[in-house]
Amino acid sequence: MGSTRAKIAVDAMGGDHAPGEIINGAIRATEELDVDILLVGDPEQINPHLERFGSSTHAHLEVVPSEGVIEMTEEPMVGLKRKRKASINVAMDMVKTERAEAVVSAGHSGAGMAAALLRLGRLKGIERPAIGAIFPTQIPNKSVIILDVGAIVDCRAKHLEQFGLMGTVYSKYVLGNNDPKVGLLNIGEESSKGNEAAIRAYQLLEANAQIPFIGNAEGRDVLSGNFDVIVCDGFVGNVVLKFAEAVGEVLLDILKEELPQGLNGQLGTALLKPNLKRIKQRVDHAEHGGGLLLGVDGICIISHGSSQAPSVYNAIRLAKDAVDEQVITRLRSFMAGKMDIHSDSTVSSQPPQG
Amino acid sequence: MGSTRAKIAVDAMGGDHAPGEIINGAIRATEELDVDILLVGDPEQINPHLERFGSSTHAHLEVVPSEGVIEMTEEPMVGLKRKRKASINVAMDMVKTERAEAVVSAGHSGAGMAAALLRLGRLKGIERPAIGAIFPTQIPNKSVIILDVGAIVDCRAKHLEQFGLMGTVYSKYVLGNNDPKVGLLNIGEESSKGNEAAIRAYQLLEANAQIPFIGNAEGRDVLSGNFDVIVCDGFVGNVVLKFAEAVGEVLLDILKEELPQGLNGQLGTALLKPNLKRIKQRVDHAEHGGGLLLGVDGICIISHGSSQAPSVYNAIRLAKDAVDEQVITRLRSFMAGKMDIHSDSTVSSQPPQG
Repeated sequence: MGSTRAKIAVDAMGGDHAPGEIINGAIRATEELDVDILLVGDPEQINPHLERFGSSTHAHLEVVPSEGVIEMTEEPMVGLKRKRKASINVAMDMVKTERAEAVVSAGHSGAGMAAALLRLGRLKGIERPAIGAIFPTQIPNKSVIILDVGAIVDCRAKHLEQFGLMGTVYSKYVLGNNDPKVGLLNIGEESSKGNEAAIRAYQLLEANAQIPFIGNAEGRDVLSGNFDVIVCDGFVGNVVLKFAEAVGEVLLDILKEELPQGLNGQLGTALLKPNLKRIKQRVDHAEHGGGLLLGVDGICIISHGSSQAPSVYNAIRLAKDAVDEQVITRLRSFMAGKMDIHSDSTVSSQPPQG
Repeated sequence: MGSTRAKIAVDAMGGDHAPGEIINGAIRATEELDVDILLVGDPEQINPHLERFGSSTHAHLEVVPSEGVIEMTEEPMVGLKRKRKASINVAMDMVKTERAEAVVSAGHSGAGMAAALLRLGRLKGIERPAIGAIFPTQIPNKSVIILDVGAIVDCRAKHLEQFGLMGTVYSKYVLGNNDPKVGLLNIGEESSKGNEAAIRAYQLLEANAQIPFIGNAEGRDVLSGNFDVIVCDGFVGNVVLKFAEAVGEVLLDILKEELPQGLNGQLGTALLKPNLKRIKQRVDHAEHGGGLLLGVDGICIISHGSSQAPSVYNAIRLAKDAVDEQVITRLRSFMAGKMDIHSDSTVSSQPPQG
């Protein structure tokens, strides 16, 4: 490719606020990030939104036509097969045919995952992909990736081990943790704690020399910053993710309700406006973009269905970071045992093979 | 009994801050609540603390001697059998021999549960007891009971159904919800969502006429106030509980850190002191006491190991509420199918049988 701009396919039709908010986020991304966007969707619905920005053509944005969308009420597999030209299918094909390097979608997450599996396939060595979510921690500017947050329930121990491998690569190269620490979400610190899958996963994670496993992480460790990667079954991960998102909103509500009470409260709250804005940024989940679908042979970001422009923008940035850091190439090498997490030799010395 | 004061056995030796903070909480309870406390522990360690309150004898407090304590590092069953006079064993015996109506312990929670099972036995119809935790919700003065938060992992569907029965009775009579709404913690609203146990539990809960089941609760519903009772496997419940506790602390830390920044920040924060105190009360888990061990034949409150006096006081209040509301008698009737959640006829017309 002549340009170093990352090429990202965005599903313009997926999500509660599609296509308007998706397009707003995408336009902002073309302006502020080094990205070219392929906006996949129905041109008749997309063009009026593009024209609001002064023109229906944009230097770094191209519309790729698709027909229909997988509805939230649809069975993913049935929908994907019935609507072959649905936006999520077309977006995945952009990556498959190497016209794009990543996909971002805020549509039906089950359908996004199924489309990725069908069109891109799994990475070698990964039996079941996981959705990774990035959480802020108590330590400023330090985040943790939790996987899986909803792709699989009833995980077996070996799946949790594979999540550990993927999380390690992602944390090291995309999040820039030189010395990532991996934990297993569990109900106690001791290796004997937890359900059957957790007890067995502890053994596998500990025995795997490629994984910098430091032990069990409890619920409180999600935010402690003691771990860079936390692996768990998709059931518990999903509950924690949705709880965490709600907690941020509840806290902001409590602040809005309690702070301005009384005369001193009103005055104090007025004085604190900029500081409150910073707090909102630290606890608001919209600031954190979307989940990364790890384990398929391509970069896919699955955003929240409720995503508005800032979330879409952040999801595109997440996709671009993954492209820039050659996540797929690195994962392939790592899964093939060709890369040691303690050295950087493999990938940087050879061109990406994707 | 001649008096209506509830008689509560408190394990003075269990917990990180035993016996000092336990005793402080117990003394406050005798002063502010209608309770008589049996303080179970080593008199040599207890008496100096009691004397700080002016006297080693107190009208509503009696010391019951015990020997030793189950350490956090001990295997519960081994410890309980080896140390027959350990404080938790002696405290349970107070209930078994009807000298007390409830037990409160902040010691090793596994040991507390095992001691309750060994000494008091299970309620008829309950295969495995659960620990219920009471969470505040977004709606002021409305709380939700989540069970199980750590007694059992790998729950089967019928255990979740039994949790639904117990939660219903607890919510209605102790928390005073006339029309309790029961939910199943899951990763989506549809009955087809979740792991095998959750899918089957949905069917059982829906089919059980004694349980006012309204459907699946997602992670965000823990705090929404849409549910009064949420049932889940102890693995996920424990993770959510510990996450929630930590989140409260993290939020308070963020407030402490961000609010006073800058000159306006300092002034504004000073003005907001009383309002911030109210916020702390709403998010601080110490305000919420302890977990209720439901399904054993006696009232047991399992408090957090880190409990200090306010938590101990709140745990005793929780125990007293359960005693006053004849939770065990009601549970027995309910499990025997003799009581309909929609009527109040059974218990109130007959004296407690325990």
